[in-house]
Amino acid sequence: MANAMLLPVLLSFLILPFSALALTQDFCVADLSRGDTPAGYPCKAHVSAGDFYYHGLAVAGNTSNLIKAAVTPAFVGQFPGVNGLGISAARLDIAVGGVVPLHTHPAASELLFVTQGTILAGFISSSSNTVYTKTLYKGDVMVFPQGLLHYQYNGGGSPAVALVAFSGPNPGLQLTDYALFANNLPSAVVEKVTFLDDAQVKKLKSVLGGSG
Amino acid sequence: MANAMLLPVLLSFLILPFSALALTQDFCVADLSRGDTPAGYPCKAHVSAGDFYYHGLAVAGNTSNLIKAAVTPAFVGQFPGVNGLGISAARLDIAVGGVVPLHTHPAASELLFVTQGTILAGFISSSSNTVYTKTLYKGDVMVFPQGLLHYQYNGGGSPAVALVAFSGPNPGLQLTDYALFANNLPSAVVEKVTFLDDAQVKKLKSVLGGSG
Amino acid sequence: MANAMLLPVLLSFLILPFSALALTQDFCVADLSRGDTPAGYPCKAHVSAGDFYYHGLAVAGNTSNLIKAAVTPAFVGQFPGVNGLGISAARLDIAVGGVVPLHTHPAASELLFVTQGTILAGFISSSSNTVYTKTLYKGDVMVFPQGLLHYQYNGGGSPAVALVAFSGPNPGLQLTDYALFANNLPSAVVEKVTFLDDAQVKKLKSVLGGSG
Amino acid sequence: MANAMLLPVLLSFLILPFSALALTQDFCVADLSRGDTPAGYPCKAHVSAGDFYYHGLAVAGNTSNLIKAAVTPAFVGQFPGVNGLGISAARLDIAVGGVVPLHTHPAASELLFVTQGTILAGFISSSSNTVYTKTLYKGDVMVFPQGLLHYQYNGGGSPAVALVAFSGPNPGLQLTDYALFANNLPSAVVEKVTFLDDAQVKKLKSVLGGSG
Amino acid sequence: MANAMLLPVLLSFLILPFSALALTQDFCVADLSRGDTPAGYPCKAHVSAGDFYYHGLAVAGNTSNLIKAAVTPAFVGQFPGVNGLGISAARLDIAVGGVVPLHTHPAASELLFVTQGTILAGFISSSSNTVYTKTLYKGDVMVFPQGLLHYQYNGGGSPAVALVAFSGPNPGLQLTDYALFANNLPSAVVEKVTFLDDAQVKKLKSVLGGSG
Amino acid sequence: MANAMLLPVLLSFLILPFSALALTQDFCVADLSRGDTPAGYPCKAHVSAGDFYYHGLAVAGNTSNLIKAAVTPAFVGQFPGVNGLGISAARLDIAVGGVVPLHTHPAASELLFVTQGTILAGFISSSSNTVYTKTLYKGDVMVFPQGLLHYQYNGGGSPAVALVAFSGPNPGLQLTDYALFANNLPSAVVEKVTFLDDAQVKKLKSVLGGSG
Repeated sequence: MANAMLLPVLLSFLILPFSALALTQDFCVADLSRGDTPAGYPCKAHVSAGDFYYHGLAVAGNTSNLIKAAVTPAFVGQFPGVNGLGISAARLDIAVGGVVPLHTHPAASELLFVTQGTILAGFISSSSNTVYTKTLYKGDVMVFPQGLLHYQYNGGGSPAVALVAFSGPNPGLQLTDYALFANNLPSAVVEKVTFLDDAQVKKLKSVLGGSG
Repeated sequence: MANAMLLPVLLSFLILPFSALALTQDFCVADLSRGDTPAGYPCKAHVSAGDFYYHGLAVAGNTSNLIKAAVTPAFVGQFPGVNGLGISAARLDIAVGGVVPLHTHPAASELLFVTQGTILAGFISSSSNTVYTKTLYKGDVMVFPQGLLHYQYNGGGSPAVALVAFSGPNPGLQLTDYALFANNLPSAVVEKVTFLDDAQVKKLKSVLGGSG
Repeated sequence: MANAMLLPVLLSFLILPFSALALTQDFCVADLSRGDTPAGYPCKAHVSAGDFYYHGLAVAGNTSNLIKAAVTPAFVGQFPGVNGLGISAARLDIAVGGVVPLHTHPAASELLFVTQGTILAGFISSSSNTVYTKTLYKGDVMVFPQGLLHYQYNGGGSPAVALVAFSGPNPGLQLTDYALFANNLPSAVVEKVTFLDDAQVKKLKSVLGGSG
Repeated sequence: MANAMLLPVLLSFLILPFSALALTQDFCVADLSRGDTPAGYPCKAHVSAGDFYYHGLAVAGNTSNLIKAAVTPAFVGQFPGVNGLGISAARLDIAVGGVVPLHTHPAASELLFVTQGTILAGFISSSSNTVYTKTLYKGDVMVFPQGLLHYQYNGGGSPAVALVAFSGPNPGLQLTDYALFANNLPSAVVEKVTFLDDAQVKKLKSVLGGSG
Repeated sequence: MANAMLLPVLLSFLILPFSALALTQDFCVADLSRGDTPAGYPCKAHVSAGDFYYHGLAVAGNTSNLIKAAVTPAFVGQFPGVNGLGISAARLDIAVGGVVPLHTHPAASELLFVTQGTILAGFISSSSNTVYTKTLYKGDVMVFPQGLLHYQYNGGGSPAVALVAFSGPNPGLQLTDYALFANNLPSAVVEKVTFLDDAQVKKLKSVLGGSG
Repeated sequence: MANAMLLPVLLSFLILPFSALALTQDFCVADLSRGDTPAGYPCKAHVSAGDFYYHGLAVAGNTSNLIKAAVTPAFVGQFPGVNGLGISAARLDIAVGGVVPLHTHPAASELLFVTQGTILAGFISSSSNTVYTKTLYKGDVMVFPQGLLHYQYNGGGSPAVALVAFSGPNPGLQLTDYALFANNLPSAVVEKVTFLDDAQVKKLKSVLGGSG
């Protein structure tokens, strides 16, 4: 339909009909410096392709620690491009014998995709305390509903790696042991609200650096 | 599993695997000074336990007024900790013969819990103008769907008190009489849009401080 | 404006202009028999005032149990009127020495209002494992953000009662101890994902009826 | 790139890569017969172009009534194609001297576009009972925030017509006068919750067909 | 009930019971100068009736261009009053032979209301690539689900005009041809991802001002 | 605190305090047989661990087709466990020279994680038709905002594989070429709304199996 002879004319005309849309919000890359709101961070004024890209998950996390595992997040704090988009990710590295201890994500569901090795994973429902558990091999996917306790550990003889995606840009990560033992919550209170024995509480507080 | 002898080593290792999560948003206490957004106020940078606590509902409202009732809010403006959490509260004190006049909450549903006395409450559906009404005693609960006209009044011989919770941090409160008679909306307009008589409108405008 | 002499005529005319709105959805009382959807239960066809009223919180829960506490819910399952309204409630009865053990609500924030006695309450953030704790007296309010671990216990010498409201009709309640010890999750797994000692795990599994 | 000689081969190959997506939900035309859910009606199994089309707003409403106005809705009940799409519409016909009386939409904001004549419109804020009012001519737009009291009336010497759009498929329409006077809410209660005089209440109950 | 003799007394009393609600958010007119957030713009501190009013759609768009059509938006960027209200609008002017080319709105569904002339409109589903098309006359309404490709063109012998409403304040407008040909996306890439011939791509890049 | 001697007694007591929560909704596995709602499928009555697990992404898609690529979805239709959880996934296999052609997801943002090979990916903004493009290697992540046109193609000398996650359980996939050429949309209409030449349209209609 378009005729090349008309090009110089067409160009100026064609652009006019939709010229007033400058403020359209296709995305909202986080400007972390301005602080958060309940819906996420204010939008950065100038963006480039790099804002939608993250390299941090390409590198294996360091599993030379007690749990022999590492969680490398690509949440909004590390990857501002996901702000407002309802999604984020993380990399799980779990050495042989390693474990990602019992935890919840208060603000997102999780989808785990195994890229290497064997992972045993489970979550526990609130209604009936039912345990849902699976052995996952390379290429398998498992989903963990928002806010429910779950865990993953290496179930094989070689390192395991997984990509996890979250249904929000800032899912949070509350490790039960850290919540109980890695702070100044008094041992007496921990014991009262968990039924754990005093010796057990004090031992884990010591391990995880808690006081009280 | 953890061995006390390993503690100094474990401590440093254990904390590493999850150290990059500093920006996680568990909550967003309102920084009221920076103004609102459609999703609520920007988050305060530094919070303490006091931000999640409110004492203002412990004190009875002053019911020495014409309606013999008082509404004491714990909305985001009074209780910044509820910002972004989808909930807020208020205290209702209704003296004998008192009434919380016809009103709506444009931005939340309401759940009322009677802590003292007897309250007669009702709401009106939009579809069929059906009235749903109940006499509520201590411990009873009633729910009022978002945006619908409702009222409460003391139905007994002693003061009534209720806690009301809302499904949002800033529910709003539009009292029909105040909307019509406590401002400068011209009497002729009020009459046109309500079918009320001129004398009635002028009387209530006078009572409620309206002009025009 | 309206003139009484015109009434018979007006009546029929006035109703006509808005007669086609029969399907308006002011509320959606749950028809529990038809099963849930991600947004709540299908709406009951015929409703009455009783659907928006609940008496179950007027009665104290039985605290003659190990934890000396009782949680009486008014969630959608007990109180179908809250379906789709973004709110629900529960009553907490905590005898002297009683405790509501460490738990989360995966699907709602909680607002607690003390109606009697003294309650010590706290929650733990995920980002820094910070503990936010308060002693609450009659009339005090505290808010617990969605999905975060929290607890309440009686901090006084007389029974404590609280009304709690939730920012959703079906908040869920995941008690950490029940999730770990009241099911068939093998002790070896519990130990692996919590760092708890074998004897501790087996003891609590036994107390809470778990196996494995 | 595609070469016409390869067409028979390409056809079968090209379709394969994306063949498993049969359940994608692009839209959800309401199956009104199966009843509502909090998020709208279940989806109709088979749809056609006619489901996304509505002719009902092309015809002027009958304004031969007391208010000399008519509201013709294209809500989900009349126009099932808007189900789940966050939008609906209505046509306003207001004869000379006509009025759409004071009302709210509990479940949507409204955007009004004048297609003919002159409309005087206003809404009232809840915070300060401030009146926001405008005279609107052909082509003018005004927006009315969700849940706030508002009204429209013909401000000129010829019939006025407007298209109104809503930010939800089922906005509701609560006319204050109908809620108060067109049902069996006892006059004594109406008077108590509105401060209106008994004679005024009884007069309007009579006009609008209420009892009690 | 109210007695004029009591007015001076009543006035002060009546206002007290609800005096603490100053921060209620009935609306949130955009303060465009402060930049966007994922939920919309921060709220303007001081508003007036003019903020809820827009005149820009009263004037016909200039259709003296290649497509013989004009889209005049009343999105949040032009009409800050719709911020946070889940709705916006635009005016379509389509001259005889004119067309609004194939496009999507990434962030809203669209409801089109024909105010003049005849419009042929269609959208295409993603699941089965089914085309849903209608000829629309004055007063007809059609709805276009969020994110799906659609188009409109004048199907009659006189100019056509439509009001379109959107289910969000900032719907976006992605014209397929502009996305492909009006930028610096290399021709080789365009050809690779569209199967279009090189000559075709270069011709349209030239027409629409693209490079590469 | 718990004493083994008390166990038989404790067991019955401990379970009582929270026994009334049977209807809690932790998740809502899709019962696909009952049809969709705007918020997703009704919940399956009985679930097991297998409902939260999907094996289908472990197997490489067949790339022996014209585009030398395959998209293997794990949307709610294939993986009912993601229903209501705001997340889903897919596997991308792109052979050397292969391409996932220009497309949008109307109902979700996409996060792509390269597990093997090199992928060139880009998306185009609606506001300014700006192209955001990146070369992605193993371990790299890129995010594509909801509803915007984007593409991926193999940029290396070996097969590429990626896991993509979506911010919704049913993201949709609208391939521009299929929408235009793989159906019965008349060529004249395609040409009118795209500016493409007749020969080009007919060629691609033929390749993709369209008619008209």
